[in-house]
Amino acid sequence: MARTCKVVLARRPHGLPEADDFRIVEEEIGDPGPGEVLSRTIYLSLDPYMRGMMDDAESYEGPMQIGDVMVGSTVGVVLDSRHKSFSAGDIVETQGGWQSHVLAHGHTLRKVDPSLAPVSTALGVLGMPGLTAYHGLVDVCRPVAGETVFVSAASGAVGATVGQIAKILSCRATGCAGSDDKVDWCLQACGFDACFNHRNATEPQRTIAAMNPEGIDINFENVGGPIARAAIMNLNEHGRMAVCGTISNYNATGQDMVEDHLWWLIVRRIRVEGFLVTDFAKKHDEARRRLAGWIADGRLTWREDIVQGLENAPATFNRLFDGSNFGKLLIQVSDNPVA
Amino acid sequence: MARTCKVVLARRPHGLPEADDFRIVEEEIGDPGPGEVLSRTIYLSLDPYMRGMMDDAESYEGPMQIGDVMVGSTVGVVLDSRHKSFSAGDIVETQGGWQSHVLAHGHTLRKVDPSLAPVSTALGVLGMPGLTAYHGLVDVCRPVAGETVFVSAASGAVGATVGQIAKILSCRATGCAGSDDKVDWCLQACGFDACFNHRNATEPQRTIAAMNPEGIDINFENVGGPIARAAIMNLNEHGRMAVCGTISNYNATGQDMVEDHLWWLIVRRIRVEGFLVTDFAKKHDEARRRLAGWIADGRLTWREDIVQGLENAPATFNRLFDGSNFGKLLIQVSDNPVA
Repeated sequence: MARTCKVVLARRPHGLPEADDFRIVEEEIGDPGPGEVLSRTIYLSLDPYMRGMMDDAESYEGPMQIGDVMVGSTVGVVLDSRHKSFSAGDIVETQGGWQSHVLAHGHTLRKVDPSLAPVSTALGVLGMPGLTAYHGLVDVCRPVAGETVFVSAASGAVGATVGQIAKILSCRATGCAGSDDKVDWCLQACGFDACFNHRNATEPQRTIAAMNPEGIDINFENVGGPIARAAIMNLNEHGRMAVCGTISNYNATGQDMVEDHLWWLIVRRIRVEGFLVTDFAKKHDEARRRLAGWIADGRLTWREDIVQGLENAPATFNRLFDGSNFGKLLIQVSDNPVA
Repeated sequence: MARTCKVVLARRPHGLPEADDFRIVEEEIGDPGPGEVLSRTIYLSLDPYMRGMMDDAESYEGPMQIGDVMVGSTVGVVLDSRHKSFSAGDIVETQGGWQSHVLAHGHTLRKVDPSLAPVSTALGVLGMPGLTAYHGLVDVCRPVAGETVFVSAASGAVGATVGQIAKILSCRATGCAGSDDKVDWCLQACGFDACFNHRNATEPQRTIAAMNPEGIDINFENVGGPIARAAIMNLNEHGRMAVCGTISNYNATGQDMVEDHLWWLIVRRIRVEGFLVTDFAKKHDEARRRLAGWIADGRLTWREDIVQGLENAPATFNRLFDGSNFGKLLIQVSDNPVA
């Protein structure tokens, strides 16, 4: 009977995980039943999202329980199969977790084609990180040729792919990474147009501005915190920001508000959009018609707070900010002939 | 020759505007030239956005200069017209500013129909605030019948319209306002399903949660700061947030980051979106095909950082957070038969 060696969550970490937060366990896992596949793990992917699942807090997946095998994507080789789509020797990707052998139903496995690239890429550029880069840039940010993309953690598995896809889609690729070596690799190997070492940047907002004199159109956010803010403040009109991760915060024990709320946008996949009424000028007539119709139907009411005399406008203006107006604040400057 | 009495910006306010920040000036404005219309202002609208334009800082409109007449929407009656679309006695809406008479080209005026509602509503529910509520809710948030809307400053000219449109569109309308009287008006006159006085709410996140046990789907943000955060933390999956204003911050002299960055989303009309790669599962195959094609073409590269041995996974995991990994971090658990 097959055995597996697995790493389980022994207790919930406080801040950065420590050795005692994990325990290594060996156990029998049985032989494949109908439809099941037994595989030996070759590669295990380590990814930042795993940290969030170790806490007893709401995230985009339920928290792990104490004693659970640590979650994770794996690439393995099939040892024994009772599923028609898989045979011994096949390379498969699955959510095997941190363990040496995996017994799972065939529908949870994806066959990996070793002719495309080394099979380890099924956990990287052709796996979850690559898909994350692709969907976040292409589907969430919808880049247009000629636009400028900024990505934090630019040398990471996601960031490096974001930058390269940006170039392939005829965009300008810029970013920041955590060492000079990483910056060099982004520039030389990945073709980024510009990249800086964020550990040397005391004023990242200015660094991003200097690197992108015409601003950025897309921010692909992996880090959160001051870098996120610096990127936001460089976004051009109608800019887009995909919030993929806020890794600077994953081990924080006292959270600051910005990172906290960006993280929540991921957990709940929330869209936040600033707007100006003037952006919708072409639809104003339709909107006014509907509003007037609702007033005519008695479905829409309003309230006014009218102060007499232009000379009272300055003092009255401040009532908007202490909340002492009740209803639309107006100054009556002169007589209303149609009242 | 016509004269106007106008309120000009005398100096830039620090915090809440004071009397000396304004000056009242009277001057001649001449008679209408070809295409021009002279009108007498009846109503002047006072709106929070004006505060931002008084600062010498980038906003969605250029800052006012010292000596400029204060900006503002006005409703007036035509006294004299040399534009074919307007005649004496017509009621018009324009960006007249804080002054008693306006001489402007006819193309900057909009005729107001007094039969629809009192003409003052051209500055409220049928004017910029009403259109802001309409476009922000309908076009930015795209509500679906049955969803729950939350709006801050719910009794304001924008907020009250947002709540009522939500009800008209078969949504649940909830919000907060700054006094018990305002809350009562939202509930009784505007038909909100629930509303609370934010001045009494020490834990607004809990208050919103208690009021909306099934969460909120749309947050229409007028206020910023702690109320914004409380609303965000109550947003459901795929929730939407239209950032219309951050009034709690308009007179701030030391800004906190959350409000600052929400404000910037308005100035630049930025879309921020949290996402998970799994949301795009139906497009994974297409994405993998494109990624593999780019690898085959030599346009997409990657880098791996492989550590041997499952027992090293716990210690290696932390390298994700100190940035000491360089490339996709993998644990090699066993031999790769296709390497």
